Amino acid sequence: MSATTEHAARQHWHDAWLPDAAFRPLGSRRVLVALGPEAGPVADTVVAEVRRATRLFGGSFTVSTADAPVEADAVAEHDVTLVVAVRAAQVGAASARFAHPTTDPNAHLVGAASGGTLTGDASAPIGEESFLLGRRDGRAYVVAGGHRGLLYGLHALVREGERAWAPGEDEVFDLPVSPLRMLDHWDNVDVHPVMGQVERGYSGGSLWFDAGSVREDLTRVGAYARLLGSVGVNAVSLNNVNVGRTEARLLTDGLPDVARLADVFRPHGVRTYLSVSFAAPMTLGGLPTSDPLDPDVQRWWAEAADRVWAAVPDFGGFVVKADSEGQPGPFAYGRDHADGANLLARAVAPHGGTVFWRAFVYNHTQDWRDRSTDRARAAYDHFHPLDGRFDDNVVVQVKHGPLDFQTREAVSPVIGAMPRTRVAVELQVTQEYTGHQKHVCYLGPWWSEILRFPLTQNATRTVAQIVTGLPGPADVDDPDGPEAAPRRAGGVVAVSNVGDDAFWTGHPLAQANLYAFARLAWDPEADPVALLDEWVGLTFPGADPRVRATLHRLMDGSWRTYEAYTAPLGVGFMVTPGSHYGPSVDGYEYSPWGTYHFADRDGIGVDRTRATGTGYTGQYEAPWRDVYEDVATCPDELLLFFHHVPWEHRLQSGTTVVQHVYDSRADAVEEVERMVGAWADLAGLVDDALHARVTERLAEQLRSATEWRDQVRTYVFRKSGVPDASGRRIY
Amino acid sequence: MSATTEHAARQHWHDAWLPDAAFRPLGSRRVLVALGPEAGPVADTVVAEVRRATRLFGGSFTVSTADAPVEADAVAEHDVTLVVAVRAAQVGAASARFAHPTTDPNAHLVGAASGGTLTGDASAPIGEESFLLGRRDGRAYVVAGGHRGLLYGLHALVREGERAWAPGEDEVFDLPVSPLRMLDHWDNVDVHPVMGQVERGYSGGSLWFDAGSVREDLTRVGAYARLLGSVGVNAVSLNNVNVGRTEARLLTDGLPDVARLADVFRPHGVRTYLSVSFAAPMTLGGLPTSDPLDPDVQRWWAEAADRVWAAVPDFGGFVVKADSEGQPGPFAYGRDHADGANLLARAVAPHGGTVFWRAFVYNHTQDWRDRSTDRARAAYDHFHPLDGRFDDNVVVQVKHGPLDFQTREAVSPVIGAMPRTRVAVELQVTQEYTGHQKHVCYLGPWWSEILRFPLTQNATRTVAQIVTGLPGPADVDDPDGPEAAPRRAGGVVAVSNVGDDAFWTGHPLAQANLYAFARLAWDPEADPVALLDEWVGLTFPGADPRVRATLHRLMDGSWRTYEAYTAPLGVGFMVTPGSHYGPSVDGYEYSPWGTYHFADRDGIGVDRTRATGTGYTGQYEAPWRDVYEDVATCPDELLLFFHHVPWEHRLQSGTTVVQHVYDSRADAVEEVERMVGAWADLAGLVDDALHARVTERLAEQLRSATEWRDQVRTYVFRKSGVPDASGRRIY
Repeated sequence: MSATTEHAARQHWHDAWLPDAAFRPLGSRRVLVALGPEAGPVADTVVAEVRRATRLFGGSFTVSTADAPVEADAVAEHDVTLVVAVRAAQVGAASARFAHPTTDPNAHLVGAASGGTLTGDASAPIGEESFLLGRRDGRAYVVAGGHRGLLYGLHALVREGERAWAPGEDEVFDLPVSPLRMLDHWDNVDVHPVMGQVERGYSGGSLWFDAGSVREDLTRVGAYARLLGSVGVNAVSLNNVNVGRTEARLLTDGLPDVARLADVFRPHGVRTYLSVSFAAPMTLGGLPTSDPLDPDVQRWWAEAADRVWAAVPDFGGFVVKADSEGQPGPFAYGRDHADGANLLARAVAPHGGTVFWRAFVYNHTQDWRDRSTDRARAAYDHFHPLDGRFDDNVVVQVKHGPLDFQTREAVSPVIGAMPRTRVAVELQVTQEYTGHQKHVCYLGPWWSEILRFPLTQNATRTVAQIVTGLPGPADVDDPDGPEAAPRRAGGVVAVSNVGDDAFWTGHPLAQANLYAFARLAWDPEADPVALLDEWVGLTFPGADPRVRATLHRLMDGSWRTYEAYTAPLGVGFMVTPGSHYGPSVDGYEYSPWGTYHFADRDGIGVDRTRATGTGYTGQYEAPWRDVYEDVATCPDELLLFFHHVPWEHRLQSGTTVVQHVYDSRADAVEEVERMVGAWADLAGLVDDALHARVTERLAEQLRSATEWRDQVRTYVFRKSGVPDASGRRIY
Repeated sequence: MSATTEHAARQHWHDAWLPDAAFRPLGSRRVLVALGPEAGPVADTVVAEVRRATRLFGGSFTVSTADAPVEADAVAEHDVTLVVAVRAAQVGAASARFAHPTTDPNAHLVGAASGGTLTGDASAPIGEESFLLGRRDGRAYVVAGGHRGLLYGLHALVREGERAWAPGEDEVFDLPVSPLRMLDHWDNVDVHPVMGQVERGYSGGSLWFDAGSVREDLTRVGAYARLLGSVGVNAVSLNNVNVGRTEARLLTDGLPDVARLADVFRPHGVRTYLSVSFAAPMTLGGLPTSDPLDPDVQRWWAEAADRVWAAVPDFGGFVVKADSEGQPGPFAYGRDHADGANLLARAVAPHGGTVFWRAFVYNHTQDWRDRSTDRARAAYDHFHPLDGRFDDNVVVQVKHGPLDFQTREAVSPVIGAMPRTRVAVELQVTQEYTGHQKHVCYLGPWWSEILRFPLTQNATRTVAQIVTGLPGPADVDDPDGPEAAPRRAGGVVAVSNVGDDAFWTGHPLAQANLYAFARLAWDPEADPVALLDEWVGLTFPGADPRVRATLHRLMDGSWRTYEAYTAPLGVGFMVTPGSHYGPSVDGYEYSPWGTYHFADRDGIGVDRTRATGTGYTGQYEAPWRDVYEDVATCPDELLLFFHHVPWEHRLQSGTTVVQHVYDSRADAVEEVERMVGAWADLAGLVDDALHARVTERLAEQLRSATEWRDQVRTYVFRKSGVPDASGRRIY
């Protein structure tokens, strides 16, 4: 598309973190792009970005596709060199330094770039997605292991801004810790009568589906793919894991449309996946069964995969929700999830495809009277026994918590319970339980806690290490060396939060969640608060310092604020049934969904101990199995998730449960009131439309938070009879 | 339609209370039909019914349209005479006897048929809808005041069966106590995204609307109209009181379709009405306002009415829901409901039309924190001050209770609070809050209680008397005579429960509710249990006595059984929000709908007293204002509607509130279990399809009743902490 039409089209949506102004430092300079001899769509994107930036800001650029090292003269004639490391010693540059110190467990992956060259005594070659970003003598450079690395390095350079040309020398090696950084779109082709065009979507319609078909004009999908590529997301699943009749046909009749979408994502380094229905051999193929051990079923899937890869040669694979919430699966045939997953895995293996098989399996027609059934146990009980049975190209995709994306949950023990299985962690960028993108709720700190949580190996191996295949201390200490316990990466996956809303995400500030997810998937050790500031800097380039300060202030603690006015102490699910927005303290208390708090006049909480409860604590390795088991050591923020306690039980914080509920809810609403005021002060300092949108959302957040506060406080008072020591009003 | 095609068409739906077999006594005899000289569609229906019955069962018939008394010879040659009393002395028959004794306050209406003639010293002529039904010398006769009376008499004769020819003499004068007996259909033209084709419909789609338009084939509407005519319903409103965009156009573009429907209803004595939108002058007419005092608005409505009556000369009028639950109304212009109603009334007056203006007006965005606002007060507060301001052709249509069709409510004080206004009572045949026609819930006893409730004049004048315009004792005792306080009838109205379901009403036994409504509207003093047996006899003619006994047993007390396992003691609204099916004890507790029970660990109920509560009791005349005010005299079944009491408050029944909740819920489920068993025993004794349908519904009723039992009992136990003295299990 020409710059003119792109500009015209862009009028319809917000720039997110790629406003033109963010490209000024690069675009005003002389740029050398050395792609090496191999062409490709991602290389074209790199060139297009450079062309666009230099056109906008008066710089210039040279593209080289020579199969030779970049000459020092060429480097000297430019302010910045973007180069693919087709072989060693392409850059006459500084000595190597690493983003991760050599004690970093990632180190064995990253190779080395010493002595001014890219290779040397590296234990592994630089990866296709990795890059060096450096500066020296007033010049900046990116040396990448491949075109995608070059694209990511280019955007890292943009994020650096003028700092990239600051005096002195610096060099940072960067690589994605997780090889798979994926967004699952729960987009429906047909508008679902209850869930709409996008299930749990709070940002308008789907970017690519519209009322039963794929849009003709995919211009905006291209803009979305560009946003993803700029932060290193490299996989997208196009459709809802709940696969309807029309959606199932993406696998057959819909393949030309899938290919069109793949063509739009490919130039940004993003591979395309589909959610498929386990019943497809019956519903699409007309077979009498979907039994994974049936040869006809196996043949059907193999032929289906052949057709898919014929249409999209770099297709990624399938995402499957099976035997869950009414979706079909292998249980109907007396088979297990390994049988089911391997069926699809063997069909896609010849093409290099991967099957993401979701572990979100539980009884959703539970009887609330039955306290022995614990939904939190379900995924572990189903999947742990299958460890070792999944094929190499199966990834078991596990929601971060044992329930369902609550504001606060324990980390799912399943993530650590399958050492012989590739496991991915699934996060939720769309704010299903965290305020529907009507509430400011910056989730970076929550995901950071999850990814850094030391789940296994005596609390030394983190979720991020597990899902990215990095070894833990126990592996390193293994007398046979780390290789004795090879780990294979699953990845970091999240449910997307975008739609055709002008701001992409309904609430403009919810863009930060998409940004933070991608950046944390790239580097789970990144500081989520620094990422927030990074996002602010890119999204509001050159803004008044008050804008940055206020946004930081509004968003930094917003997840904890949201937690503080909603369900307390990890108990979860006090939301309105169905919509999952707004309070309904007893809404799920007598439901079939397995989501209870058991509040009565004496106390509240779910006893998940081994001693007296459901035994869920026993699914954890030490020390967590004991930390959580003991009410004295269980963290306050998860207390009601693990224990049923009296209303006047004293927390580790020193206050009682009931007084904590009273205080935190009231304090949190006061904080939201301050947020409203702080934002109002930014009028005139940010774009008017954006300011108006956020103002409108904050008003709703304050209304809703007040409702949460009053309903939860009143509910607890009516049950407990304990007055609020602070004297604040209860209704 | 020919008998053959009618038979073929009838294969698709159940006969309800008009199975062929019910016509055998009439159809096997020699019938004389003396219509008088005036032809008309209802006369044609009478002839068609006689023709059909005699063809089926081998009888014969003669039709006379002579403008002369029926000759004694002609009477002697027939077994039954159906005659319109075109003038006095048409029947050489028995002396007059009255269905109602002369002390009956109806007497002044009914005229007299003495000395073997139909007129004489009557204080009023026999009405067009009235009839004498008699037998003498082995012959039966119906003498009617008009064709509709003849139709109603014919069906009364059918209901009598062979008894009509029993030895001896008898004569009963019958007339409809309520001149208006109306069914409001909440049918949508377009399928509403939430409410569907029929709002609060549990019987499939609409009989006449289908996905955006009026059906081409109205055959089944004719069958429905026949059912209505057979029990004296004489008015139908075609569309939902919530008037959507498409529905509004029935008043304009849709008139040809309305005329087609009126043509189908007319032969059965049923006049057609429409629900209209108060905003129609703007939405349909393009005016800038709907202000009732605006001359252009007045002109628009007058012209709209002209068009309607041009299309349907006997059109009935309009039903209006204004300023309620989001519907437009006069408040937007600073006008009141009298202004609004009179606007429409003046438009339809030249055509003899009537406006039914609903009093269901309240704040549906209430704050649950605000205990001073009482939704129960709203209709009275809005309408009582307007008494005397409504035009003669306005009927204020009042829901029977102050809230919304709960299983148990006090009678609405509004019904008695507007002596200078025509008032109709609105019942709900469709089981919105009484089990969605999945539960057996025979509502006849409930409506009978309401209609017979002595609301005013020191508890002597009943709801039925008020809405039918009959005088009360205070009027009779008036020194100026009853005429000093002329009363004008409003009518008895109900929300319909039929749809295109094969059994008309989803649950086959819910047909009895439609039947009982019509018969109680005809005679509010009728015994609802006798009506139940009457319905059973007609619907299952010739059935094994066990069928009749079991149906009686299943249905007789089913409303009280339903009450006993759902919300207790009049507190209401413990239903699932939105659907109104199944329990959600706190579902409406923190909602904007004004429907709360305020349960806490100490007690439950709504204080509506003058002394300490909302003052709602003050809307009643003596003695009710005092009976309800005092917790000692307030009836148990309404206790929690009027008072907030401790859990261990002792009821007049002798048990405590909490133990009553425990016991009645558990007992009621045991009763449902017995119902399931009793019905199972009827297998083979009734139609298999009907048996299967009821069996399926009873299974759901048992499941749902068990859920109600367990949730309400558990909820109350968790709040109160009081154990169930019976020792039955609480979860």
